[in-house]
Amino acid sequence: MKNTKIVEVLKTDPVLQEISVQGWVRAFRSNRFIALNDGSTINNIQAVVDFENTPQEILDEINIGAALHITGTLKESEGKGQKVEIAAKEITILGKANSDDVKKTILSPKRHSLEKLREQAHLRVRTNTFGAIMRVRAKLSFAVHQYFNENGFYYVNTPIITGSDAEGAGEMFRVTNFDLNNPAKDENGKVNFKEDFFGKETNLTVSGQLEAETYAMGLGQVYTFGPTFRAENSNTSRHLAEFWMIEPEVAFCDLDGNMDLAEDFIKYVLNYVLTHCDDDLAFLENRLIQEDKAKPEKDRAPMPLREKLKFITENNFKRVSYTEAIEILKNSKPNKKKKFDYLIEEWGADLQSEHERYLVEKHFKCPVILFDYPAQIKAFYMRLNEDGKTVRAMDVLFPGIGEMVGGSQREERLEVLQEKMKEFNIDEEELWWYLDTRRFGSCVHSGFGLGFERLVLFATGMSNIRDVIPFPRTPQNAEF
Amino acid sequence: MKNTKIVEVLKTDPVLQEISVQGWVRAFRSNRFIALNDGSTINNIQAVVDFENTPQEILDEINIGAALHITGTLKESEGKGQKVEIAAKEITILGKANSDDVKKTILSPKRHSLEKLREQAHLRVRTNTFGAIMRVRAKLSFAVHQYFNENGFYYVNTPIITGSDAEGAGEMFRVTNFDLNNPAKDENGKVNFKEDFFGKETNLTVSGQLEAETYAMGLGQVYTFGPTFRAENSNTSRHLAEFWMIEPEVAFCDLDGNMDLAEDFIKYVLNYVLTHCDDDLAFLENRLIQEDKAKPEKDRAPMPLREKLKFITENNFKRVSYTEAIEILKNSKPNKKKKFDYLIEEWGADLQSEHERYLVEKHFKCPVILFDYPAQIKAFYMRLNEDGKTVRAMDVLFPGIGEMVGGSQREERLEVLQEKMKEFNIDEEELWWYLDTRRFGSCVHSGFGLGFERLVLFATGMSNIRDVIPFPRTPQNAEF
Repeated sequence: MKNTKIVEVLKTDPVLQEISVQGWVRAFRSNRFIALNDGSTINNIQAVVDFENTPQEILDEINIGAALHITGTLKESEGKGQKVEIAAKEITILGKANSDDVKKTILSPKRHSLEKLREQAHLRVRTNTFGAIMRVRAKLSFAVHQYFNENGFYYVNTPIITGSDAEGAGEMFRVTNFDLNNPAKDENGKVNFKEDFFGKETNLTVSGQLEAETYAMGLGQVYTFGPTFRAENSNTSRHLAEFWMIEPEVAFCDLDGNMDLAEDFIKYVLNYVLTHCDDDLAFLENRLIQEDKAKPEKDRAPMPLREKLKFITENNFKRVSYTEAIEILKNSKPNKKKKFDYLIEEWGADLQSEHERYLVEKHFKCPVILFDYPAQIKAFYMRLNEDGKTVRAMDVLFPGIGEMVGGSQREERLEVLQEKMKEFNIDEEELWWYLDTRRFGSCVHSGFGLGFERLVLFATGMSNIRDVIPFPRTPQNAEF
Repeated sequence: MKNTKIVEVLKTDPVLQEISVQGWVRAFRSNRFIALNDGSTINNIQAVVDFENTPQEILDEINIGAALHITGTLKESEGKGQKVEIAAKEITILGKANSDDVKKTILSPKRHSLEKLREQAHLRVRTNTFGAIMRVRAKLSFAVHQYFNENGFYYVNTPIITGSDAEGAGEMFRVTNFDLNNPAKDENGKVNFKEDFFGKETNLTVSGQLEAETYAMGLGQVYTFGPTFRAENSNTSRHLAEFWMIEPEVAFCDLDGNMDLAEDFIKYVLNYVLTHCDDDLAFLENRLIQEDKAKPEKDRAPMPLREKLKFITENNFKRVSYTEAIEILKNSKPNKKKKFDYLIEEWGADLQSEHERYLVEKHFKCPVILFDYPAQIKAFYMRLNEDGKTVRAMDVLFPGIGEMVGGSQREERLEVLQEKMKEFNIDEEELWWYLDTRRFGSCVHSGFGLGFERLVLFATGMSNIRDVIPFPRTPQNAEF
């Protein structure tokens, strides 16, 4: 008999049909009720053991974590909490799970801290919480690809190993084929990178944007979705040394078009998970509500998870200039009462998460896109406005998160770009190929970057970024 | 007026409507006919210049490579080769392209070698060939995600930076945050990796399989699709130091199921591009035919590109055991006449590309899946057969390429796996987490790996792997 996935079984009408399933034991009550899960859904199928006709040696091995094959009759459930259950006829133990050993792991049926779960990242996906998170993550990924595919974007794999460090000086990991104890040296006793694999110093990319721009100039609309790296020694709940980034880049598109794209894109992918992951989101929503009970009122989530997602998909994003935002912040209560950690005193200040969240959560009460930032706090490639002091940058701000997206219209004028690179001490020779895009058929173009894990954090209601990527890489941690 | 993409314009009925387009000049003939391309399709739209009413300074800037905005009337084309054309009313030069400068680049309208194009990888996507390749690549990527999503697989991002080198000893790139001229040292003068970013030696991954297995044991069906790395000093048309790999991993799936999956998957993604990339494939097919004319008969492609793809999608893959294949090869003409570079003398020999291609192209004349390989030539994690000398490995062999997919049923028995690891000198302590999957609810499971660039090579008919990835990384080359 063909095995059926549990997600399908749970949708099946119980016409007393024979069925067989495979999965892992999540619970075994009263020597009778097995809760079996196969990862296809957060929900378990209940299998009722015919314990009189089941050999004791089988019963003894139905432990939490064990892999079973169960054949039986699908019928209406007598218990509550599920529509159908399986009256088990035959149970095969596919893989045992010694209950004493299980007790030493996070598979054991008690509350484990998220920290503990992280130490066993190879097992945590077998828990309800992490199963749900990783299914939502996967569906979000798919939504990203589907959105861009439907809208005429081409996926581009920009290089991971890069010889250029124009953007990330100091924060990049080095890649080498040298034995670090014995690298090739030149006549001055310095490491001779000409003898290294690539014949020069190489790093792990911090962004595929510059390369993506060259592709937008040929294919029109492109996007990257790949790993990026920061060798930043930040041990916080918001930083990863390795994370996945989405970077669309669009030719013939100005900042307004860029804002439209970011808003449309985010709404699409969140709508996708609202539609396709309801069971998982419901679980995560409830998890958050339970967790919030232990917190002081002010630290609780202002609304349930799915409502929060709809708050994004159903609201227009408010578009506000940086200059306007500074005025609002300067005159805001927390600024006047000195409640902000960083007080806003004058135009030109870099905004912190507390300011971004104030604008979104307290002032506008909707997602906000800030634009036209001071040139000196933004990157060299952003398009200079006619005022000579602001650039066509934009940040999309979200409740609870702050910046979700950072983007800009790119400086398309060769001379202005060269001027900016001089100011920023960026070597023209290193970026000769980037400048070529402005030499041959340059045009207005725009793009943005979205850290995928931030989106997953937001969509799952989790609060530590290490809990939304399978095997997080952080300072002092590259386990698994 | 809203700008229309050229792919849409070319599908529009010419009802004399006003239209505006943007793109780059691919050709400008007789001071009159502009061929404009925006990357949305390989096809150009022809815009006919009203040269009497177009200022000379505009006409002077309509150079190859320049970015233009053209407004005009869409009408039936008077020339041949296109259905519609635009009678241009207004032409705006968005970005110039100095024709003397263009002559120094691969944008200039003459035949450039693929080597030359590689040196200008930031511009080559603006050529017909590379536009087509990269659109096919992008569509293939999407097909991969869509196939797995439709079939209940979850996308898993396994780590790129890894502390484990169990699989790739000697071929892995090192990742470090040290200044290589001045790394932290211990009391013995050795590099002290405890002081490095991750507190230990780290490398770039060669495969996400082992981590994916842990996820398959929770989510049931997963796949990776991400960059992998080899620090192999191979300067060939088949090797990249950085390439993208697809690795599905399925719980409760044996080798037969694995073969079914590989065959179904490959057929799906190739069918997808046959359906969605016909213009690009037609161009690439013709390109290959033209190129083959300069070659001796025996080196030409045995069939046109799209026919070759249909050869895969419409044929059953022949499944043959390694043992049977060895017999066939031993008795084959090229073996007896000593035409193979590596003669097949006895069971246990590792097959070379020439043998794989003989089986596919000469003997079976269809795609072939070889299975049950000798244990000693395969990896430690492959399931040992009852004969004690073969493992449940499989390779999918393609015409012109040889191995397209390598996979196996995984060894699910803890003791056998431990034994194998001892034999292969793999440290149990390093893979404690991998072994845990066999301790807690182990089950029959399988997976495979497919090097994405090989698939793109096959689908585009290109012959050098550096031409199917935007910015190839190879020994002595990490430009851009």
